[in-house]
Formats: sequence, C-alpha cells, structure tokens
Amino acid sequence: MERETSAAILVHGGAGNLGPDDPASFGLEAPRLRGVREAAAAGWEILTCGGSALDAVEAAVRVLEDDPTYNAGTGACLTAAGDVELDAAIMDGETLRCGAVAVVKDVKNPVILARRVMERSEHVLLAGPGASAFARSVGIPAYEGTLLATAQQRARWERLRVEQRQPVRAELASPKGTVGAVARDRRGHLAAATSTGGMAMKRPGRVGDTPIIGCGTYADDALAAVSCTGHGERIIQLTLSRYCADLVGQGRSATEAAEEAVRTLGARVQGEGGVIVVARHGEVGFAHNTPVMSRAWARPDGTIVAEM
Amino acid sequence: MERETSAAILVHGGAGNLGPDDPASFGLEAPRLRGVREAAAAGWEILTCGGSALDAVEAAVRVLEDDPTYNAGTGACLTAAGDVELDAAIMDGETLRCGAVAVVKDVKNPVILARRVMERSEHVLLAGPGASAFARSVGIPAYEGTLLATAQQRARWERLRVEQRQPVRAELASPKGTVGAVARDRRGHLAAATSTGGMAMKRPGRVGDTPIIGCGTYADDALAAVSCTGHGERIIQLTLSRYCADLVGQGRSATEAAEEAVRTLGARVQGEGGVIVVARHGEVGFAHNTPVMSRAWARPDGTIVAEM
Repeated sequence: MERETSAAILVHGGAGNLGPDDPASFGLEAPRLRGVREAAAAGWEILTCGGSALDAVEAAVRVLEDDPTYNAGTGACLTAAGDVELDAAIMDGETLRCGAVAVVKDVKNPVILARRVMERSEHVLLAGPGASAFARSVGIPAYEGTLLATAQQRARWERLRVEQRQPVRAELASPKGTVGAVARDRRGHLAAATSTGGMAMKRPGRVGDTPIIGCGTYADDALAAVSCTGHGERIIQLTLSRYCADLVGQGRSATEAAEEAVRTLGARVQGEGGVIVVARHGEVGFAHNTPVMSRAWARPDGTIVAEM
Repeated sequence: MERETSAAILVHGGAGNLGPDDPASFGLEAPRLRGVREAAAAGWEILTCGGSALDAVEAAVRVLEDDPTYNAGTGACLTAAGDVELDAAIMDGETLRCGAVAVVKDVKNPVILARRVMERSEHVLLAGPGASAFARSVGIPAYEGTLLATAQQRARWERLRVEQRQPVRAELASPKGTVGAVARDRRGHLAAATSTGGMAMKRPGRVGDTPIIGCGTYADDALAAVSCTGHGERIIQLTLSRYCADLVGQGRSATEAAEEAVRTLGARVQGEGGVIVVARHGEVGFAHNTPVMSRAWARPDGTIVAEM
C-alpha cells in the first residue's frame, strides 16, 4: 500500500490589471476572492476524502468556469466576431496523459470535455467543430453560446467594438482572467488544469497558451504541476509551464521556480502573466508580474487562504 | 557587422515503418529520397546566398508540402470524414517569434500561412475556419481540398474505411510522414518549421504535435532548432522539441540530444518517432526509434546527403 503523504491545492483566477470598471478597483474584491476560495475548497474536499489530484483540479476549475466573474466557461470574453470560443486543458502527472480542447463554442464546462478527450479519445487536442462533435459522441450536451456570454461581457464587447480596440489583452485589462488549478493528492500524484475564454476581441480561431500542453498547462509527478495565466502568445514562446516544471526538477523550490519563470517571461519576451506551481513533494508557489493575480490555496489544516 | 559563420540545414520527410504497399518496401527509395534532397537543396541555396534560416526552413518545407510523396500539403492523408486537415508551424530562434495553423482545409502551403500568422497577426496559433479567414485577409487564396487529397490517399482512405481501422497511425504505417526543417544561417540565427496532414483516419478537429510550439517545433538561438515527427500525442506529452533543445542547452551535442530525446519518447510514453536538430553552433543531429526516417542535409561544401 502506498504511504499517504500531504495533499495540496492551489488555484488562480487570472493575472492582470484592475480595469477601470472593475469592482475590485473600488475595493470590492469580495466576488473575485469568493470564487477562488470556493474553487480551492471544492478541490481540497476531494483531496481530503482520498480523491485524486486529477479529480481535484477538474472540480476546482469547474467552479470557476461556472462563476461569471471569471473569463472561462460562463462569463468568457468575446471574440472580434462577438462569439465565445473556449479553450481548456488537463494533465495527469502520474501517467503524463493529457487532454485539451480549443475554439469550443457550445460546451458549458470545457475542462470536463478536455478530460473526456484524455480518457475517451486517442487524441490530446481537439479544436473547433470537431471538438463539439466529440462532445456529443461522449454525451456532453450542446450548451447555448448565448448563455456563456454574460450581459456584462456583451456590453464590454459593444464598447470595445466602438472603440475599435482589437484585440485587447483581456486578461491584462481586467483581473477576470483565465482560471487554473494545480494539486497533489495523498498518493503523491500531481495534476494541473486550466480554462479560458482567451483575449477579448481575439480573432476567431485564435488558440492561446491554455490548451497547449507545456505552455499553459503541465504536470509530471517527477517535476511539478503548473498552470499559467497572462498574455498567451508570450507564454507559448517560452513553453512556460514546462520551463517552470523543469526548474523544480533542477532543485528550485516551487516559489523560486514560479518567480524565475515569471522573471524570464518578462525579460525574454516582454510577457505579462503569472504561474501557480505545486512541486512534487507538495510545496506550493506562485508568482506574477501583473499588478494582481487572484489565487487561493489550502493550508494543511484545511483553512483556505484567498488573496489577490 | 556580424561575423559570418557556418550555415546548416537538415530536413526530414517523416519517421515510420515501410508500409506493405510502399515503393520503398521494394527497394524503390528514390522518390522519397529525391524529395528531401530537393528540400535541403532549396534551403541551402537560400543560406549560401546569405538568406535567413527562417526563409530557408520555409522554402524547404514548401518543397515537401508540394511533393505528393509526403503527408503534408498536397498528398496529406485524410481524416475519418474523408477531408484533408493540415497543421504547420514555424519559429524564429532569434526573436522566439512563432506562428502556427491547425485544422486548415483549403490552403496549399500551410507553412506560408503559419509564417503570415507570425508576422501579420498578433497571435501564435489559429485553428479551423478562423485560420482560413485570416489566410484570405492576407491574400492567400483558397485552394481546393480535393486538389490536396491525391488519388493515392483517397484510395487508402477507402481501404481503411472498409477495414474500419480508425484511427490508423499514418506516419507509423508509412514513411510518408510529417515534414520538417531546421537551419542555421550565416549570422548564427536558428529556425525550425514543420508541416503535416496528421494521422490517417484521425477525428475531425484533431491537432497533433506539429503546430504546437515546444512539441513538434521549437527554435531558440541560445539552444537549438528542432522539428519532430512520429506519434504526435506522445510527442506532446513530453514537449519533445523543447526538451531536446534544452538538452543542447545543457551541453549535449546535437546527436546526443536527439538520441536522448527519442530514447525518452520510447521509455516514458512508449512513443515512436524521430527528431532533427541543429545546435546553436551549427552542428546537426538526428535520431529515430522507427525503422526509417527520410532526411537530407548539406555538407559544408554544399553536397546534399539524403538517407532513410
């Protein structure tokens, strides 16, 4: 029987600036902190009941996808064409199995679909209508894109269209960004998951770092589990999640690895963003070079700490 | 003025087995070797005229996309739905800029479109109809998918459909695989490009390693340029091109890095494939754990060597 060791979970709700119309700009940070707190608690409950890291990160990300405060699932920002196009990925550090979806318009919880791709297809990444067709084939019903697009995001899109600011770096204009989770279960296995609506006013078909294994999402029991947020194109150039995991493999602590990854993101490609990390032995760390990054994690006694 | 140093180019035409109906099985390797030889020569000519590594890898991959012998551009294998869906990527090691496209049905040379994404969009990866719309916006005309699907691939699809073998690992059933090129120019800059039709009988919307930066394609002047071929889902799990480039960064030779990358691919995820590498100082290397991998490179005197 495997020896039980300490579990850990850390979630993020996106790195960015405080937008001018953001409640948090007026000190109203509560809605943003509530979401990451609930997500971390959902994942922690699974871990303390002996559940897997994979189940924990999926559950945490689902909470944030369903929370209209975040740019993932319901509440995702809109493309230049006014549609929702969702990206998500999940990875199992024990087996290195992974699944991801991109440019999905009609699924309520892309992280669930990403896990189905991992477990029920022979592929890693499905994009566009093919991803939707696969969703139907595994029993995930079509969900109206108009339900994913909140009135707030629709109003924002109308405003941005008038201002002709396209594309706007959504996650940098607002802390309502990409969401993600990393976890370690009691058996010592790691997992990571990330989900996003991408940039506001992005070109239709644009795929950011989130569903790209090694860029927005990576997990390897021998190294670490990592989820990224920020300017996706810059994160891709450095394969940031894999880079950060490798730093842990080279002996850095979770915090040191996160800080060095974000420093490199800024220095080499002038990228803005953040990372969350759980190292192989369960230590958690994070870093961001944006003004804020909402996040929450569980203390060993189960207390959830939420910050931004 | 920058000191001129030695240029290098190495191309591959895919790693795999010899299929039962493959001319090479009967010793007729000439068509396969001719293609990679012509591609290496096209890239080498650009480099010897003082052109960039980026131009050289694009030119080399274009030659192989237009050669119906290879599974990229014209001659690509077909999805389960009987369509062509093309993936490609290109990366500039000097700036770390990169561009990629996935699930493209109507472009003759996806590598050209990938470069346009890099140079003329604010994004890295465009997938599906959005990639085609972008192509039109930058003057790349629509190309009939029926012209990309050769009679040979159509016949193969009919046969596989009857046999209900879906998906078949196309590149492993035949050495007509993914194509790619890595180069170093006289100014010391590196570049990599890769293009593919993916697996035969793949699910519509499937994206393999080819257009995923850090998986099928990576280039960083500080490390190496790498292009991969083989079972894409396994290559993605290891972010193989980035892993291989990092091995060069840790002091391995191009050959050692290629061999260790392929050994890891087999050992950790039971993956089959191959890699080509040009290290920062211009040394080339390759490795594959499949029976064959067609490839060609230029000797310093300009002689092109082609092997499989």
